[in-house]
Amino acid sequence: MRVYNFSAGPSALPEEVLKRAQDEMVEYPGAGMSVMEMSHRSKEYEAIINDAERLVRELMNVPDNYKVLFLQGGASSQFAMIPMNLCKNGKADYVITGQWAKKAASEAEKYLKVNRVASSADKTFSYIPKLDKSAFDPEADYFHITYNNTIYGTHYTELPDTGNVPLVADISSCVLAEKIDVSKFGLLYAGAQKNLGPAGVTLVIVRDDLIREDLPESVPTMFKYKIHADNGSMYNTPPTYAIYILKLVLEWVKEKGGVEELQKINEKKAAALYDYLDNSEMFKGTVVPEDRSLMNIPFVTGNDELDAEFVKKSKAAGLMNLKGHRTVGGMRASIYNAMTVEGVNALIDFMKKFESENK
Amino acid sequence: MRVYNFSAGPSALPEEVLKRAQDEMVEYPGAGMSVMEMSHRSKEYEAIINDAERLVRELMNVPDNYKVLFLQGGASSQFAMIPMNLCKNGKADYVITGQWAKKAASEAEKYLKVNRVASSADKTFSYIPKLDKSAFDPEADYFHITYNNTIYGTHYTELPDTGNVPLVADISSCVLAEKIDVSKFGLLYAGAQKNLGPAGVTLVIVRDDLIREDLPESVPTMFKYKIHADNGSMYNTPPTYAIYILKLVLEWVKEKGGVEELQKINEKKAAALYDYLDNSEMFKGTVVPEDRSLMNIPFVTGNDELDAEFVKKSKAAGLMNLKGHRTVGGMRASIYNAMTVEGVNALIDFMKKFESENK
Repeated sequence: MRVYNFSAGPSALPEEVLKRAQDEMVEYPGAGMSVMEMSHRSKEYEAIINDAERLVRELMNVPDNYKVLFLQGGASSQFAMIPMNLCKNGKADYVITGQWAKKAASEAEKYLKVNRVASSADKTFSYIPKLDKSAFDPEADYFHITYNNTIYGTHYTELPDTGNVPLVADISSCVLAEKIDVSKFGLLYAGAQKNLGPAGVTLVIVRDDLIREDLPESVPTMFKYKIHADNGSMYNTPPTYAIYILKLVLEWVKEKGGVEELQKINEKKAAALYDYLDNSEMFKGTVVPEDRSLMNIPFVTGNDELDAEFVKKSKAAGLMNLKGHRTVGGMRASIYNAMTVEGVNALIDFMKKFESENK
Repeated sequence: MRVYNFSAGPSALPEEVLKRAQDEMVEYPGAGMSVMEMSHRSKEYEAIINDAERLVRELMNVPDNYKVLFLQGGASSQFAMIPMNLCKNGKADYVITGQWAKKAASEAEKYLKVNRVASSADKTFSYIPKLDKSAFDPEADYFHITYNNTIYGTHYTELPDTGNVPLVADISSCVLAEKIDVSKFGLLYAGAQKNLGPAGVTLVIVRDDLIREDLPESVPTMFKYKIHADNGSMYNTPPTYAIYILKLVLEWVKEKGGVEELQKINEKKAAALYDYLDNSEMFKGTVVPEDRSLMNIPFVTGNDELDAEFVKKSKAAGLMNLKGHRTVGGMRASIYNAMTVEGVNALIDFMKKFESENK
């Protein structure tokens, strides 16, 4: 029996997608072979990767002056690729809203001067700091945010107005979960293993004018956006199977009515859980109400032993991976697109039961 | 019906592996979820990646003073990682035996001085050049070879004696196909999509003393062997599903009797095809007999139209991806571990028939 999987990533995938992949595993229709066995230069595979790109463009309403790239190396590789490719004036603004934002800034610091515009480290990243425009550098090569913070469960409700400075965002844990206006960004990136598909493929959406040719000799060829953009993500063999699963997920999103419909469901799921947390006498959310994530919901009882007991018992009840990140403690429910309303309701029911049994 | 797939990569996988993956796609036994949905930090997944490493060590007889890493970015990323990590004296030797060796050398040239020890470019890389030891630089940081040349179908029969200079080899298209004495190398690397598994994971086997901490600040964190070695290939989320398939392939290799037994089968398969080529009046191999690859066998009729006709008709007969690389022309049969004896015999039978019909 399939469990409810609240993992922060890699995380649950739609069961329909897995069943389709299962059906097509040994023989992709009409090909006589698995997608894993296809030459990436074959007509069959080109149709798959082209469909994936087309669906990203359609579902995210990507303007024509942006490239859609499927890369390897995760968001962690983007932490270096972004400064290496976008560095011109030699400086960039970063907002520090959690561990990933910190890592992104530290890596960027190897290549340019990082201006840490604001941070919420003082309160374990439990809020999104108010941004003071006077701290923004108008000469910065870009302005980096982590749109949704997977570990801490925070989320921007308002985008910083960076003027002519390109806004760059890590959207790993909110891509396809809510409407994102691509035209407001210079570059967006997302590791696939939350809302998009399996680990091993990274989506990058980058505006044409930021794809430069004149990069320092020291930049590895595989770290140049230009190389991947010029070769349709096929400069070398792409992670073909991961892109195929991504395509199936995108088809599933479209079938469900697109991002707009999923956002409604996600808002309903999150509201149900937050509502329970706000009314519970045992559990409470760790994030200020105005910055709460739709996708990652950390909560605590305030008692470490009780937290541990909850995690143990929830696991036995088929509610998996609810243990919180070590820097926050307690619990965290990641409720990405593939988490059903039923799954969230099962969690709430279990929490109610646990609360009444452990008063 | 499954076809015979002679693709150079991504290429055929054992049907048993695909069926096992199919069975376990929606629910991995005991986990209640797909391997794709597992947190890479979960006990279930850790068992998978640990098994993969253990099996690589066992099947390739990897000495204890080597690390086994599962990375992303393909061999093309290794082309930069190798010089970036191994550069000390600022120079390295490269033997140019084909397009991939050329690319590896060009990329390395961004980071150090490349000494091209020898090349077989004069005859479209149809042989492995004799190496003159006096051309070797005893101060080189390493000596790079492409052990098996996928495009041109050549293969080293004898390893260069590089003394104290670490030998580095791209074994993408011969890993697990034949015995390789790891202890003779400083570093071995292989994109998975030929003999190991799906595209999207790269195997690196590197001797401990070559894993350095004191690298220039400009080296991206994700390009440091040390980071991946210290974190058991889990510095960031690894390509979890690709590693799982790799593990299934390794289990299959072990079941078949290990590399030694597969090598016997591979020698039989290759001998059958070369034997036919040597006796055919229509087809001939493009590589000098002494340097022929066990894995990639290019051949031509000498007539472009006839070649095209052959490729077309072979496809209609369920023998796929036999078109040769554009730089060699003609045909190429890649007969990796997963290509069965039956598949090779079917190809030979078809060639015989084609020859008799087109005299």
